[in-house]
Formats: sequence, C-alpha cells, structure tokens
Amino acid sequence: MAPRIVVDAMGGDHAPDVAVEGAVHAARGGGVSLVLTGPEATIRPLAARLAGGDAALEALPIRFVDAPEVISMDEQPVSAIRRKKQSSILVGLRLVRDNEADAFVSAGNTGAIMAAATLVLGRLPGVERPALAALLPTRDGTTVLVDVGANIDVKPQHLEQFAIMGACLSRAVRGIENPRVALLSIGEEEGKGNELLRGVHQVLKRAPINFVGNVDGKDVFSGHADVIVTDGFTGNAILKSCESLVKELYGLVRREIDNSLMARIGVLLMGPTLRRIGRRMDHSEQGGVPLLGVARPVFIGHGSSSVKSIRSAIRAAATFTERRVNEAIEEGVRQLGVVAPEETSAETRDAVATGNARKVRP
Amino acid sequence: MAPRIVVDAMGGDHAPDVAVEGAVHAARGGGVSLVLTGPEATIRPLAARLAGGDAALEALPIRFVDAPEVISMDEQPVSAIRRKKQSSILVGLRLVRDNEADAFVSAGNTGAIMAAATLVLGRLPGVERPALAALLPTRDGTTVLVDVGANIDVKPQHLEQFAIMGACLSRAVRGIENPRVALLSIGEEEGKGNELLRGVHQVLKRAPINFVGNVDGKDVFSGHADVIVTDGFTGNAILKSCESLVKELYGLVRREIDNSLMARIGVLLMGPTLRRIGRRMDHSEQGGVPLLGVARPVFIGHGSSSVKSIRSAIRAAATFTERRVNEAIEEGVRQLGVVAPEETSAETRDAVATGNARKVRP
Repeated sequence: MAPRIVVDAMGGDHAPDVAVEGAVHAARGGGVSLVLTGPEATIRPLAARLAGGDAALEALPIRFVDAPEVISMDEQPVSAIRRKKQSSILVGLRLVRDNEADAFVSAGNTGAIMAAATLVLGRLPGVERPALAALLPTRDGTTVLVDVGANIDVKPQHLEQFAIMGACLSRAVRGIENPRVALLSIGEEEGKGNELLRGVHQVLKRAPINFVGNVDGKDVFSGHADVIVTDGFTGNAILKSCESLVKELYGLVRREIDNSLMARIGVLLMGPTLRRIGRRMDHSEQGGVPLLGVARPVFIGHGSSSVKSIRSAIRAAATFTERRVNEAIEEGVRQLGVVAPEETSAETRDAVATGNARKVRP
Repeated sequence: MAPRIVVDAMGGDHAPDVAVEGAVHAARGGGVSLVLTGPEATIRPLAARLAGGDAALEALPIRFVDAPEVISMDEQPVSAIRRKKQSSILVGLRLVRDNEADAFVSAGNTGAIMAAATLVLGRLPGVERPALAALLPTRDGTTVLVDVGANIDVKPQHLEQFAIMGACLSRAVRGIENPRVALLSIGEEEGKGNELLRGVHQVLKRAPINFVGNVDGKDVFSGHADVIVTDGFTGNAILKSCESLVKELYGLVRREIDNSLMARIGVLLMGPTLRRIGRRMDHSEQGGVPLLGVARPVFIGHGSSSVKSIRSAIRAAATFTERRVNEAIEEGVRQLGVVAPEETSAETRDAVATGNARKVRP
C-alpha cells in the first residue's frame, strides 16, 4: 500500500493555495495517497479547481478531513494548540495517531507542530528529546545536521540520541551503511570547546556509532561527515544563515547579470548548466525537515514553501515511511541501553578513561 | 605619520612566503609602514627576492625584527605562548605594547594570538572579554557579526559589551552614525529562546545602543541589522559554515561549467560580471578579523590566507588605527557605567519593567 500522508492545507505563508497545489501535484505523481486537513468548504473547491474539475479531483488519491480552525504562523505555540483542538495541525496529527494515515506534513507554525506532534503522537520509546534534522548538500552527497531548531538547551545524552537518530536517517535515506558521525565544535581537536563539549565528546566516543571526532563549521558542507550533531540553537543559526546566504548570492548574481548585455547572452548559453546548479542549491528539492524521535513520521516545511517544496516534503515523508526510519531509530536508541550518563558507575568511568567504554555496554 | 603595522611573517599555512609577499605588496601600496617579525635570516632574503632585490627592498617602508621561534598552527595556545617568548607572535605584540608600532596582523594560530594579545597588550579599560568581529557582506553594505570565536561561554553583560564594540566598529569603519544592533536568536519574537537569551534581550534593551531586537540566522546576510551579537561558538559556526558553503558552491559551479562547452563560452562573455561577483564574495577582500577589546589593534587572518588576504588585513588594521576605533570602544564601554546586571537595583528593575530603563543610566 502506498504511504498515506496527511498534508496540512493551512500550513505556510501562502496557504492554502500552495499547500493544496503541492498536494495535487504529489497525488498526480503517484506512489502516495493523501489526506488534506483544513476548512473543507475552502480547500475542496480549491483542490478541484487546481486538479482541473471535480471529476479530475475524484480520480486523484486525495481525501479531505474537515478542520475548521487555523493556527497562524506567528501564534504562540503552546496556547494555540491548547485552544485550537480542531485546527488543521491537530486534526491531521490525530489521523496519524489513530493509524488512518502514516505521516504528517506541514509548512505551518514550527513551534506549534513540534509541540503538538510530541503531545499527540508521543515520543519513540527511549527518546528524550525529538530533534529536527536537515539534509545539507555536499560535493558528493548529503550531510545530516541535527538538531536544527527543536532544542536550545541540550545535555550530552541528548546529543548522543541525536547522533543515533541522525545515523538512522543517513542510513535509511542515503543508503550509507556505517555513517560517519561528528560533533560540531570550534576546532577539530578533542580538547577544544567548553566543558559541555568535552563531555559530549566522551559520550559520543563510547556510543554505538561510527564517531569520527570533532569538526568545525567549515566541514558542514565539505562532506567529511555524514552526520553532524549540535544543539538546536547553533544548528538553526547555521541552516538559516546558509539559506539566507544562498538567497542573497542568487540575488547578487541576478542583479549583476541584468546590468550587462554580454552577461545576459552568456547566461543564455549556460542555461542547462545553470539549471543543474540551481537544482543542487535549491532547498525546495528537500522540501521539509523531519522531526526525529516522535512516534510517527512528521515533516516540517519552511513557512515560505513553494508548490515544489510541498511536493518534495510529501515525497520525503513517503520515503521516510517506506524505509521504516522510525523502527531503526527505536532499535538504535534501545541499544544505547539503560546506562544513562548521570548513572555512570565507577566501572564505566574507568572503562571510559582506559578507552574500553564499549565493553560495559550490554 | 602612516600607521605602523607589525606583520607576523610566520603566521598562516603558507608562511613565510605568503605573509612576506602580502607585506611587500602592502608596502608598495603606500600609506603604511611595516615591521616583519620572524627569523630574520630567513625572512629578509625572502622579502628582498620578492621586492626585486636588496635595493628595492631598502626603498620600501619595511623593517625587520628578529624572532627566532615559531608557534605552529596546531600548537596548544597557552603552553606555546608560555614556552616561546621569542616567537614572531610575542615579539610582534611586544613591539606594539612598547609603542614601536600601532597594530599587529597575523594569520597564525588564532588561539595563541588571542591569548598572547590579551596577556601582552591587556584589555581596554572596562572590557571584560575581547571578542572577534567579522564583517559580512550584505546586499547594500556590511553586517558586523560578533563574537565569531573568542568566547564559547558568555554572560549577558559580555554580549552587551560585544554590542558596544560592534557598534563602534560599524560606525568607524562603515561610517554608520547610529548602527542598528540585533541579538541573534532562534526566532524574532522577544519571548523566544532560553532564559539566557531572554536575559540578554532585556540587558540590550536598556544598553546605550540602537537595539532593534532579535533576528535569526536568515538575517545574517539580509542587512536588517548593522551589528549582530552572539556567543563565539554560534558566531564561529555561522562564519565557517558560510565560508565553506561559498567555497563548495564555487567548486560546484566550476565543475559544471567545465563539463559544458556552451557554458564555457557563456563564461567568457560573462567575464567582467563574474569578476565583480567574485570580488564581493571573496573573503580575502576582508583579510582578517579584529580582536575587539584588547588595548591595541590586533587583526587575525585565516590560516589559509592568500597574499591578497594579508594585504587586505594590513589595510584593515591601518584603517582601524587611523579611525581610532579603540578610543571609541573605550568611551562606549565607559558609558555603560558601573551598573552591572547582577547589581541591578529595584529601581532599575522597575524602570526596565516600565520601559524607562535608560533614565537610570548616568
């Protein structure tokens, strides 16, 4: 059976138009069946118009579930999900919880989606903190950066879990057997950074992952690691500043080219090459970031998502479901065992000191 | 008198060649007089060769001060500066301390330069933590990002001082009368972020600066603020990941173009436009980042600095000296007064709560 994906029709700066059009495109593309949540009286006629009529819509694997309330992009998340039980976000997540669908996709209020997903779906067994994972393009592949915004304050064991979850994602989505996991630091040497970072380094060293040590910012796009773990504040700052840099560079290049006839002719000749470059740079190819660690697949898109972004996020959620990433995360976190860092015994500490940490793991 | 700049001839991955050649270029460009520190037996003949002979070197405003020891790029900073008193870094900083020169420029071991500069030159009166400031290109100008690596752990009053120092730099170097200062956060609203961020927001609100509120990563290159303050860990991650992104994009574009004859012809037509774009993107235009808050001007370049980067860093240090940025920082920090956040009186707290905070300042 094709994965059944709920799409929040009211999520994003250009909802419902963009979200609904993205869903129609994804439905036409095949391989998924979709559920749209939102005020049905609005979104059904819109979908029919975008699909090319009622009959054409009927032929697509899309159904509608009415959700009369809307959580806006800038609403305070916790109070919004408390007040708006019939919002497109909560109605959609309950469908996934009740197994009427497999995954949830929204370009809406990130804070509200994260809080609601944790509340309605719950966390995978053993996961302490769900985290957002971004797939960043590198020269030859993709680096998973986690967390990119769910957790500002983190403890070493949270980063250990981010590492496990990121590795599962890298393995499932990119087919990398034994992903190289690195810790973002301010220098590559183990001794650099503050006390927290040194503590995390020790925890990651003995975790059941392929830990390759510290990297710094210059390795985010170099491909030296398949997974880079950091706190959600730093990860968010990296992701957003890099997105903003690409956008500004694109604008700069456009303005400079527009100022020169020769350059405009040059661009015509470069057409196919530029389109290939654009595809690799375009974040909408990715579409959305998964919220790792909640019990069912949840993808969150940019507020400014385009039709293509929504379609890509639906595609990514389907792949995540089909490749059973959550099952892998659950197994990975289970293997971390019950020895939480705070409960580390003297034996474990000795083992860490002598580099034999793995021996004390079950 | 032209600013007298010490250049660490042994700093950087390609020392002494690149550092010495950068100095020779800068000396030819005029407006500065230079002192090169390093093993004189090595660097003087090198400079003579690069200048085109002994006579040509004699005609340039360059002198040499022998420093037989070298601190390598990956040496542990604190032990290195303790052991190598005759290193090019320490000899150079002592020349500045003793007023035989005005500023120090090095592309060497960042940690060693920061530690040695603070030790030898001392901090400006009132400054608690020196910080590194990067000047990032935006659409219409430049944003100062501070701190980009000197302080991993920060307190609100440190960020307040970073804001003052960044504003002084923006005013002096970019000519902006009343620079807009923002706090990097994970969302734009005041209530977002953790307790530390909310505390910093309150402190910045009542600081004698033009505080425009929180920004997030997407505003780093948008030009919405002239100065953005953050901790050195996050700032370093942003700076290095963005540099790495530009480098990877450049490589991607090159490879794609090399694969297409049409694209190669297109590039020929676009030559002048591409060179203009390249100039704006190239970090070597900046050359180095100032270490704000130490008593004399210090600029630190990338380990991978090119000849052009070294020359640019010398130019930037000269401008920093001529525009008396340190005097402005000293005055700005003095105006912060003696009311440290921890000592805030009930009256001050009330004033903060009612938005009248500035009234309690002297």
